Amino acid sequence: MSHLYRITLKTEEKGLFDITKEVQQKVTESGVKEGICLVFCPHTTASITINENADDDVRRDVNLALNTVFPRLEGFRHDEGNSDCHVKCSVLGASETLIVTEGKLLLGKWQDVYFAEFDPPRTRTVYIKVLEG
Amino acid sequence: MSHLYRITLKTEEKGLFDITKEVQQKVTESGVKEGICLVFCPHTTASITINENADDDVRRDVNLALNTVFPRLEGFRHDEGNSDCHVKCSVLGASETLIVTEGKLLLGKWQDVYFAEFDPPRTRTVYIKVLEG
Amino acid sequence: MSHLYRITLKTEEKGLFDITKEVQQKVTESGVKEGICLVFCPHTTASITINENADDDVRRDVNLALNTVFPRLEGFRHDEGNSDCHVKCSVLGASETLIVTEGKLLLGKWQDVYFAEFDPPRTRTVYIKVLEG
Repeated sequence: MSHLYRITLKTEEKGLFDITKEVQQKVTESGVKEGICLVFCPHTTASITINENADDDVRRDVNLALNTVFPRLEGFRHDEGNSDCHVKCSVLGASETLIVTEGKLLLGKWQDVYFAEFDPPRTRTVYIKVLEG
Repeated sequence: MSHLYRITLKTEEKGLFDITKEVQQKVTESGVKEGICLVFCPHTTASITINENADDDVRRDVNLALNTVFPRLEGFRHDEGNSDCHVKCSVLGASETLIVTEGKLLLGKWQDVYFAEFDPPRTRTVYIKVLEG
Repeated sequence: MSHLYRITLKTEEKGLFDITKEVQQKVTESGVKEGICLVFCPHTTASITINENADDDVRRDVNLALNTVFPRLEGFRHDEGNSDCHVKCSVLGASETLIVTEGKLLLGKWQDVYFAEFDPPRTRTVYIKVLEG
């Protein structure tokens, strides 16, 4: 029995959007108690990442740093003009894999799961796959 | 029953080489209909990444940005002189994990899977592991 | 039967700490011969990464490059003052997924698994999940 789910979100601006509750909800729905959970982003100007959940300034600072370190370069040729977003996508990666135990995501005290939007506004999809074992 | 495969490729230059067809071929060969697929790079100056498949300039721009943002620093000591390649390897990561459903890789419309070569020319190996569930 | 383990380490300084032996030990303990192994960091100022095991200067150079490319920016607001560490955490990622075959981690000749500490000194935890298949 396969446990594959899909959630959607609307992003109005660049930044990290917390999807931990939605992911946990699908894990609960799956009924899987022990296993792993793959959170996968099917877009090429967005990523999935894990970072601090306590101080909103952390998410803000991560966003600031990514925009500072990976700017639009003069040498870019891609005619949509958003190659900097594609770069960030490869740097943060398309997915995160989480541990599930006792039916819960095994996250650190300060960790949440975020959808990282680099090229808003968009309607985005996230796939969630739960594997038992 | 374990589904572990290996492909090889030759890289003549720096950049992103599309391996989506080869990965899908191994998923098909495995007979697995629902599960996940781990694409793993056993090298330390190369990575696996997912990015846009439509405009070749995206791959070119990603390569340009990586070489610009992660240059050879004067302070590097590694005597092979390719520490910048090792840095990129940790930044893009050794693997990507994909969802398999109905026997197919679940990729976004614009996504393909790439082998990222930082230190050519080389003969490279990629391991592909398919897990049912 | 679920195979979930936990190791701890103390970090005195920034850098990459080799945890390959500890991870292999847990894989051996699990008795799993074929499958995957997820190495997960439950912290937000540290990561798991794979890189070269031969020349210690590579680890040193990777650490140098990360500190150079991702500095503390003037615009950071997070009051703990360690947003640069949170940025590196998202860039290198919370986990690595490895292949297990014949009871061994399938690593390249030059690869080892590292705990990357960005904000020492700390006592850190790493979760190791082994999945059969």
